[in-house]
Amino acid sequence: MPVPERQLIAQLKKTSSRRSGPVLLGIGDDCALLRVLPEKDMLVTTDFSLEGVHFRRDWQSPECIGHRCLTRGLSDIAAMGGRPTGVFLSLALPNNLPQKWVDRFFAGLLALARRHKVELAGGDTSESTAGVLADIVVVGSVERGKALLRSGARVGDQIYVTGQLGESAAALHLLSARKIKRRDIFPNPRIAAGEWLCRSQIASAAIDISDGLSTDLSHICEQSRVGAVIEAEAIPIHSSARKWRNQTERRASMSADSGLDAALHGGEDYELLFTAPQSKRVPRRIAGVQVSRIGEIARGHKMQLISNGNKQAITPSGWEHFRRN
Amino acid sequence: MPVPERQLIAQLKKTSSRRSGPVLLGIGDDCALLRVLPEKDMLVTTDFSLEGVHFRRDWQSPECIGHRCLTRGLSDIAAMGGRPTGVFLSLALPNNLPQKWVDRFFAGLLALARRHKVELAGGDTSESTAGVLADIVVVGSVERGKALLRSGARVGDQIYVTGQLGESAAALHLLSARKIKRRDIFPNPRIAAGEWLCRSQIASAAIDISDGLSTDLSHICEQSRVGAVIEAEAIPIHSSARKWRNQTERRASMSADSGLDAALHGGEDYELLFTAPQSKRVPRRIAGVQVSRIGEIARGHKMQLISNGNKQAITPSGWEHFRRN
Repeated sequence: MPVPERQLIAQLKKTSSRRSGPVLLGIGDDCALLRVLPEKDMLVTTDFSLEGVHFRRDWQSPECIGHRCLTRGLSDIAAMGGRPTGVFLSLALPNNLPQKWVDRFFAGLLALARRHKVELAGGDTSESTAGVLADIVVVGSVERGKALLRSGARVGDQIYVTGQLGESAAALHLLSARKIKRRDIFPNPRIAAGEWLCRSQIASAAIDISDGLSTDLSHICEQSRVGAVIEAEAIPIHSSARKWRNQTERRASMSADSGLDAALHGGEDYELLFTAPQSKRVPRRIAGVQVSRIGEIARGHKMQLISNGNKQAITPSGWEHFRRN
Repeated sequence: MPVPERQLIAQLKKTSSRRSGPVLLGIGDDCALLRVLPEKDMLVTTDFSLEGVHFRRDWQSPECIGHRCLTRGLSDIAAMGGRPTGVFLSLALPNNLPQKWVDRFFAGLLALARRHKVELAGGDTSESTAGVLADIVVVGSVERGKALLRSGARVGDQIYVTGQLGESAAALHLLSARKIKRRDIFPNPRIAAGEWLCRSQIASAAIDISDGLSTDLSHICEQSRVGAVIEAEAIPIHSSARKWRNQTERRASMSADSGLDAALHGGEDYELLFTAPQSKRVPRRIAGVQVSRIGEIARGHKMQLISNGNKQAITPSGWEHFRRN
């Protein structure tokens, strides 16, 4: 067992010594042992965070990388209307990585876990020959038969998003263009909003915006076999994306408005995108988070953008990872 | 989305289109959705299989690498006495990897999954800048309150192993020493034997031998706060380890008998190591697999080896990964 593994296991043990709630047994045996209540269904999601693909150590602090690693998993649970039960982290580290980096990575990850009252219940450790490799697994639970799926959107349903879009994409472009050296963004997975949507039975379909609004909306459209019309002026664009006007960095698929592009195609915002029948009253804020109506589900399978009265097709062009930049 | 991801997702969808049993919803939404029976507890385990750390593409076939990747997870479920419910695979692939390799990797993994009637229910895909990176997550179930733990061994309990030990270690040494070029070994995770041990309530503690008998026994001793005495002559050494007599490759911790060393310290055999009170009758075969009594749980915390009437201390020195060779 190489040295970093020992340190990691100590770290994992330290954080999981108290047994309470659904995790009966955490780190230290062959498997973790969980008890699921009979009126619940179980959710499982896994997400990679790989150095050089999903993050760069010179662009973000270890705390931010740890936070975002867990956000990826929690956000998937939120998108199903669930509550997280236990977190599992497979983590491979280069032998020359400073222990301080590992400590700070865990500090970021565990602070977010505590905020959502979820326990680090297990995982695997290894050495890595190629940067920091993390795979986060989040297990959650949801009321039996009540999970929010991508497949429930119907023609005429209204389309909503939580929060604001484009902050991560704008930062990524500034980093790629070397306009800024580092930028930490700590997205807040919308667990409480997802639970509210599930409990209130307002939403007909939901997904989290991890790959970009255009790409994630296309998943709802495909799985629900519908189309969509989005109103450009209704999209809540994050202030940092509005400010960003670097036309030279635009991609061929982008419009003249780079702020709108960041909000429409930028990924890693971790907001919720959901649909609800027109008859349902959707509040302006859910669990403290702003909610914006951005369009309507339509017949067919096309996605269209209305801007200044003009309609144009939306091509799913969610943000790609660092390698492409 | 890079090309290998599209191919992978197609592969995953193909293999998970039929919904039956505890997996209500597999690939295609934010999370997989599982239903756990109220009389069961849930098991979760995660295991990395990283190129250059856990396997080498020039030493093993893609089918074998896929098989062993899943074996790591299934074997953990077996060691708790459980039955697998769903498999999740996070897989990152280099852009230049031939599709044929990926197909053969999946063929090996899915053949083993089918044999154990377990479904590939989800996962994540990414490109990799550094070889093939896999993280396997297996979710399983076990009779409520009946999971086989590492912590239940008591002084006087007899120690048993399934199958034979040392085959993987012997092969690894021959590969490292360039005596052979390739060697495929397809270990059989002992799910049926684990389930039998759980049902019969014979075993007081159990673990799977993934890191080597000496290391995995030390985990039982630590967690049960006991010691152990192992009889060298009783260890079932695999014929290929018996044949292997390359003294020059031995490590400092090894005895004069390299076959015994492979069985005692070699990892990745994926057999079960378990203890049972002396009062229980343990059959010679469980679920078709040979069972050997190899020693006894003792007071204290030391592990000792009796060989030709002489006692010596056993130092946990489980096989380390390829990098060390």
